[in-house]
Amino acid sequence: MTKKKPKKEKKEFKVNFLPFDASVEVQPGTSLLDAVKTADLPLKTTCGGKGTCGDCVVQIISGAYHSKQSAALSDKLASQGFALACQTEVTDNITAQLPRFRELAIQSIVDSKFFEEQKDNISGIYEIDPPVKKIELDLAPPTLEDNYSDLKRISRALQKKLSLKKLGCEYSVLKKLAHAVRKDQGKISVILFMARNEATIIDAVPQSEEKKLYGIACDVGTTTVALHLVNLRSGKIEKTVSSLNQQITGGEDIISRINYAQKPEGLRKLHELIILTVNNLIEMASGAAQISPSDIYYASLSGNTTMFHLLLNLEPRYIREEPYVPTFNEVPSILSRNLGLKMNNEGRIHCAPAVGSYVGGDITAGLLCTPLLQDSKKISLFIDAGTNGELVVGNKDWLVTCACSAGPAFEGSGIKCGMPASEGAIEEVKMADSGELEYKVIGGTKPKGICGSGLVDLLAELFIHGYIDRHGKYDEEKAGEKIVEVEEEKGFLVEEDKNSYWGKNLIITENDISNLIRTKGAVFSACSLLLKNVGLSFDKIDSFYIAGGFGQHLKIENAIRIGLLPDLERAKFHYLGNSSLLGAYLILLSDKNKALAEEVAQKMTYIELNTEPNYMNEFTGALFLPHTDIKLFPSVKTVQRS
Amino acid sequence: MTKKKPKKEKKEFKVNFLPFDASVEVQPGTSLLDAVKTADLPLKTTCGGKGTCGDCVVQIISGAYHSKQSAALSDKLASQGFALACQTEVTDNITAQLPRFRELAIQSIVDSKFFEEQKDNISGIYEIDPPVKKIELDLAPPTLEDNYSDLKRISRALQKKLSLKKLGCEYSVLKKLAHAVRKDQGKISVILFMARNEATIIDAVPQSEEKKLYGIACDVGTTTVALHLVNLRSGKIEKTVSSLNQQITGGEDIISRINYAQKPEGLRKLHELIILTVNNLIEMASGAAQISPSDIYYASLSGNTTMFHLLLNLEPRYIREEPYVPTFNEVPSILSRNLGLKMNNEGRIHCAPAVGSYVGGDITAGLLCTPLLQDSKKISLFIDAGTNGELVVGNKDWLVTCACSAGPAFEGSGIKCGMPASEGAIEEVKMADSGELEYKVIGGTKPKGICGSGLVDLLAELFIHGYIDRHGKYDEEKAGEKIVEVEEEKGFLVEEDKNSYWGKNLIITENDISNLIRTKGAVFSACSLLLKNVGLSFDKIDSFYIAGGFGQHLKIENAIRIGLLPDLERAKFHYLGNSSLLGAYLILLSDKNKALAEEVAQKMTYIELNTEPNYMNEFTGALFLPHTDIKLFPSVKTVQRS
Repeated sequence: MTKKKPKKEKKEFKVNFLPFDASVEVQPGTSLLDAVKTADLPLKTTCGGKGTCGDCVVQIISGAYHSKQSAALSDKLASQGFALACQTEVTDNITAQLPRFRELAIQSIVDSKFFEEQKDNISGIYEIDPPVKKIELDLAPPTLEDNYSDLKRISRALQKKLSLKKLGCEYSVLKKLAHAVRKDQGKISVILFMARNEATIIDAVPQSEEKKLYGIACDVGTTTVALHLVNLRSGKIEKTVSSLNQQITGGEDIISRINYAQKPEGLRKLHELIILTVNNLIEMASGAAQISPSDIYYASLSGNTTMFHLLLNLEPRYIREEPYVPTFNEVPSILSRNLGLKMNNEGRIHCAPAVGSYVGGDITAGLLCTPLLQDSKKISLFIDAGTNGELVVGNKDWLVTCACSAGPAFEGSGIKCGMPASEGAIEEVKMADSGELEYKVIGGTKPKGICGSGLVDLLAELFIHGYIDRHGKYDEEKAGEKIVEVEEEKGFLVEEDKNSYWGKNLIITENDISNLIRTKGAVFSACSLLLKNVGLSFDKIDSFYIAGGFGQHLKIENAIRIGLLPDLERAKFHYLGNSSLLGAYLILLSDKNKALAEEVAQKMTYIELNTEPNYMNEFTGALFLPHTDIKLFPSVKTVQRS
Repeated sequence: MTKKKPKKEKKEFKVNFLPFDASVEVQPGTSLLDAVKTADLPLKTTCGGKGTCGDCVVQIISGAYHSKQSAALSDKLASQGFALACQTEVTDNITAQLPRFRELAIQSIVDSKFFEEQKDNISGIYEIDPPVKKIELDLAPPTLEDNYSDLKRISRALQKKLSLKKLGCEYSVLKKLAHAVRKDQGKISVILFMARNEATIIDAVPQSEEKKLYGIACDVGTTTVALHLVNLRSGKIEKTVSSLNQQITGGEDIISRINYAQKPEGLRKLHELIILTVNNLIEMASGAAQISPSDIYYASLSGNTTMFHLLLNLEPRYIREEPYVPTFNEVPSILSRNLGLKMNNEGRIHCAPAVGSYVGGDITAGLLCTPLLQDSKKISLFIDAGTNGELVVGNKDWLVTCACSAGPAFEGSGIKCGMPASEGAIEEVKMADSGELEYKVIGGTKPKGICGSGLVDLLAELFIHGYIDRHGKYDEEKAGEKIVEVEEEKGFLVEEDKNSYWGKNLIITENDISNLIRTKGAVFSACSLLLKNVGLSFDKIDSFYIAGGFGQHLKIENAIRIGLLPDLERAKFHYLGNSSLLGAYLILLSDKNKALAEEVAQKMTYIELNTEPNYMNEFTGALFLPHTDIKLFPSVKTVQRS
């Protein structure tokens, strides 16, 4: 009655994927795209593996392979070892680099001079007083009359420098204390983690071992994860890196991720993917800054509530089940080793406090980057147009917030030639009356794709020049030869294959435009409804703060032209960039900002828009350029032909 | 040039040792004693493997073996599977039980009624208010209007019951919170670890999962480790177990252990042995009480400074190098999982505070069991005669302490028929004028050996009846046929082989007596010197408190007769038993006792006796029965012949 196991087919070739250091074994002749899928790694394909979209381009670092020629990849790139994964058969042990991550890793998202310019104009304070501190001590030599323990001697010396109510010491530090105290005759550096006047010793080394003190601020976004590596003594941002959230294989928005987590091993997998994402970023940043990850003692994270649950390996399902109760909104600091983050083993992790299931720590952190919390008279509106959109209206005394499912279009996801704001992305577009496009590429290279700010520009230019109508459909007569057919869809040719980085046409299709319109419509209608809920109209708002993954430069004028923002005095608008990351950085620098974020989280009132009867009406009205009700946008002039 | 590895000899049989669950592979014909040595497990042998002492008796649970007949083991026991390890050849896969541990595991060391009788007469308070608490909450169901996070809901409910300044939550608890909160519709039990008005949630379960709350108090002695398993809700001691400290393979006293720790892997080995010892005790106690080790959330440990360093895997060498600076005297609570103790993973471990390298947490804990710390008028002397002897003189207002190397003789170690105070130990001995011995055995079995109190009695009786002289040498004429020759030494036959449990003669040799005299001499001379140091004589002391591993009943009269204690009014003496264990129990029950122990540790002044010029004089004088200066013991009358 013994059941015979089916004989396992022999797998012959090993495929290793960088930068993940993940590998799979596959049979000869397997397509590289299938190998990527088997390894459960993220690689975009729009055409479904037909070799036409060119999205799945990878670079083969080593090993033999057989690749079909394809119009979507230039011969030049092919000769440099680039290949379309869907058109490549594995015929050897192969090491392949998945390109999106490599490229994203080196970009700078935030101008580190931000604080020099903004620091007097934000609610958070710019003060370099992080809770992790390095203190140098010179312990007097022990004698028979004064032979207190090592720990006590350190405690006495610390008390002379700091007025501590309580001093703890991690077990791992105890183990090295005897050596650390004696190596340099009592000259010792201790690393303290402080909470008000209580401290815990989390490291101790002899002073001859030079000890660096670093921290990270990290925005754990649904689509993009961005990280600052910060010198905690100077406050300087040493490196900024970002990448796609590798959880993207588990779905593009938070609802898909929560559903994915319900599958067997789904939660563990998503947890491991986000840890992998952050660890890759830490490794890249610390490698570039030539420090060891063990020099990183503190991490300040911002992100939405679902991302935090997945990061902490916590069941997220109740976030989407009424009445939407998450496990935590605020949580005491967590040890890095509990999560397996590549930091010092005694490193502490702080998660920015959330308001609830749909307004997370990214928003409380983001508000620190605005003057909104300082002013009792003026009323401000804060909009974070990420994959999930969140809005806050109010001032120092009151705050009301809501969320909407915007979608990741402005982060370049779900758009054929979309990409995050990294090297090679078109970030600005201008159309001459002749129809000629001028654009600016991040890093000055040939264009690889278009990021959020470029997409807003492009949509606005197409619209005001009459190339698309109010529904976002192309006027073929007007656009003429610029309109091409791609995969049974009409598209506008932004750049020809020969001028693009990957040697493929950069095209924006009607479907892309429709995605962009849905996203801007969701944000605008949520703004509108939120204000109606608090009894205000747009003109009562004194300042608009816009955050999101658009890129460094969002043109307000164009955001108004497409109806993403209301048609008001331009001086009221302020574009913040990735305020979630900046807020995490502020919290990293000082516990005063941490306390302010907690206060904000406590204070905010959350409104559930999905249960609003007017929601669908408002949303549908916003699915036009700029809006169904054109009177709302008097300044938007277009070349519409009747 | 490749060096050929010598061919590894094939090892054929596996020998498994209980209760350690340790095993080794040996070649056929290897002696079982060698197998024990290979496994680095403790097994006493006095005759060095000649088959004459009978100390290395083990029980073969399974497997075939070949054992030579020996006078040191009765045929009856041999037929029951008992065998002398040194006389047994391994001829099969074998499972053998090392007996000392098995036997020691079931004894009760401390009368759990102690507190009923003593509680008003000790410095520690008898209050059942441990820092680990189980709180039952009934959370109101969440609604869309009140959909705070699970953690916040728990926090709110706790605040209604306790006035907390700060509430933390362990990461492992976060992971199970969603389930625990929802399983019984908000009816949840949380386990808190509290320090004043700050609490950390260390566990959370739905109320339908009945959650037990236990703690352990453990005296980590150099020779013996003793443990109470305590119900933390009632304060009741459910089980008491003890065993030899398995580090005994690394030497009998703390100096040998510190030296052993300097060997390669020595520290790790000693650390693992003490953890194994405590884990075995936890397993036995929790098995007997039918609870799971994961129900144990708190451990209060007492022990000397060296034992604590080895337990925590900390370098102990500076304890014995001038100026004797340990890594710690007091340490914040340590997580059980850091040490690998068999408790709940979030369990907390408290180490009783030490005064210095040679006066440890066993002494501060022990003082809680005396009224010494409550009285400003009377002066008391506290003596803990363990493997290391410690003394304290003083009262509520001042305390002076010192240490001496007493040796483990009163714990039964280094004495041929010595054993700890467990089942089968002779604990009381009386000699009639005829020379007949009457004795009492713990558990009422045939005697296996003699414990500390029995040894004190025996030594006193032999002395006052003139069987030994003031040097501890036998008077053969007087003792007659009771004196036997054993391994080229003279010994007094306490019990014949046929009447003893292991079927071997119970004999006390001149060497044994010499060990006992050295031990009592070390304690007495230390007392004497300590008092001289503070300018007091014995008659100025109002109370003497004696602690140690003698067993339950130490006869003060006999302790004076042998010169262990000074010859003063008998009513001044109080025998405490294992005060270190009792003190650990008091600290387990209430943080007020923990605070008192800390205060005591701060207050005590340590005197280094080894540097005293009079030390050797005092010690040599005490190496007689009862003392060189017989005038110090006027009440001790002996039948000495001229």
